[in-house]
Amino acid sequence: MTPQAVEKLALVGVGLIGGSFALALRERGLVREVVGIGRSRSNLEQALERRIIDSIGHDCAAARDAELVLVATPVAQMPRVFADLAKAVGDECIVTDAGSTKQDVIRGAREAFGERMTRFVPAHPIAGTEKNGAAAAFASLYEGRKVVLTPEAETNPCALARVQELWRACGAEVRTMPASRHDAIFAAVSHLPHLLAFALVDELASRQEAAEFFAYAASGFRDFTRIAGSDPEMWRDISVANRDALQAELDRYGKQIERLRHLLQDADEAGLEEMFRAASNARRAWEGRSA
Amino acid sequence: MTPQAVEKLALVGVGLIGGSFALALRERGLVREVVGIGRSRSNLEQALERRIIDSIGHDCAAARDAELVLVATPVAQMPRVFADLAKAVGDECIVTDAGSTKQDVIRGAREAFGERMTRFVPAHPIAGTEKNGAAAAFASLYEGRKVVLTPEAETNPCALARVQELWRACGAEVRTMPASRHDAIFAAVSHLPHLLAFALVDELASRQEAAEFFAYAASGFRDFTRIAGSDPEMWRDISVANRDALQAELDRYGKQIERLRHLLQDADEAGLEEMFRAASNARRAWEGRSA
Repeated sequence: MTPQAVEKLALVGVGLIGGSFALALRERGLVREVVGIGRSRSNLEQALERRIIDSIGHDCAAARDAELVLVATPVAQMPRVFADLAKAVGDECIVTDAGSTKQDVIRGAREAFGERMTRFVPAHPIAGTEKNGAAAAFASLYEGRKVVLTPEAETNPCALARVQELWRACGAEVRTMPASRHDAIFAAVSHLPHLLAFALVDELASRQEAAEFFAYAASGFRDFTRIAGSDPEMWRDISVANRDALQAELDRYGKQIERLRHLLQDADEAGLEEMFRAASNARRAWEGRSA
Repeated sequence: MTPQAVEKLALVGVGLIGGSFALALRERGLVREVVGIGRSRSNLEQALERRIIDSIGHDCAAARDAELVLVATPVAQMPRVFADLAKAVGDECIVTDAGSTKQDVIRGAREAFGERMTRFVPAHPIAGTEKNGAAAAFASLYEGRKVVLTPEAETNPCALARVQELWRACGAEVRTMPASRHDAIFAAVSHLPHLLAFALVDELASRQEAAEFFAYAASGFRDFTRIAGSDPEMWRDISVANRDALQAELDRYGKQIERLRHLLQDADEAGLEEMFRAASNARRAWEGRSA
């Protein structure tokens, strides 16, 4: 069933994530008007040129008569954005977000929205972030991708259903789970790998002989460290926002490092092979399923 | 200057590495006859069919009148292969290898060859290992790739020069360094990343909720863990062979994990950003140089 078109969509943060959402809705005739709000004037002008947005709003007041607001800024900016939006939007307006962490975003939203928290729908579209800005947005970004919604006890069911049907219309597969579960899962499968890759490259780069070492790095190193080229500010914010879950993951991983250390010390061939084989089998099975 | 053709090349292990060396020499008219020796009859027959080798040898005795022997088996099999070769090959024969670790290979060679160690040239071609077997071999594998030679004090300079000119003729860039240096570099840029990726996937796969966690893993996870799909036996052997250097790397990395733990505990945004930025800059600079 095709959802009703959004009369007015306000995008706070018109980058790859927000811009692609607008383009996906537009392509399907599911939005009549889009206003873009953001810090970079040149990015907003590019969004205007690419017809991602119809107009540029100077600040969150421009979201006044929006039916739906998508906040797609870095997570650390969200509390301030929510506070500004709380003063601007109407009672019927639905606010949703695209943050990579959920418990801290929800804390910020609750503080800003108070009783109107019922109209806030916490969401995380799982989509690439290597390229940024309105220039990188494209309408099919969400096709076949997952979007996780993490409603709270008070979330209005109609608001939740509305956000869900719009993401589905964009081609996404929508899943719902508690925010704490979301944060635990993404600490393990996304945030920890990023930190491990940053840690490895930072350690190598800090050595006197770094240039010589890097000269011998090959394709395995290239893949393993690709995510270490990610945006430092964004990952600083995610790390701090999800630090409880991340610390638990680091503890588990620290134990694996200890295990490896012992296996090497004992030259325990069977133990090493067992760990490598379990990993190799799981990795191949996952690649097979997710291909 | 084009090197003289090899009269007879014996390949012990006719997989991607050995087979591609033979094909590269053949394509340039730099080898007259190739005999293949290996454990898998069907692999050797495939090599024969693909004209990688001219004949199948039953064991190392078939290397009797070879001018050059390339040992391209897994490193753990090399001591036995060297012992068999020592009984077979002539005094003028040059033996070289393609092992990913060097100090342990050299120990095995010295034990087998004794005084004839002068004719052994330790080598490590840095080339992909994701696909295996004679079926995967191709003539251009080494073009633009690095080959590291790690001669010992007694290595005969003519033997060294011969191996060097043949790898160069295959299109490789040849570097020379001490075996201990080689092992330290590859522990850092190759062996450690493999162990870290294995450890991560093994840890995730061991959880009760593994299936749900894997379902949310995305492209960053895919790249980071690609090397965890590598061959468990091969990496068991490499880990044990290079365990001293690997333990030193694990110690350094363990300290980075500790550092991350403290940064998160203190919610030290500046410290986290500093680490991430150093890594991101180094990673981007490396990608730029090596592209």
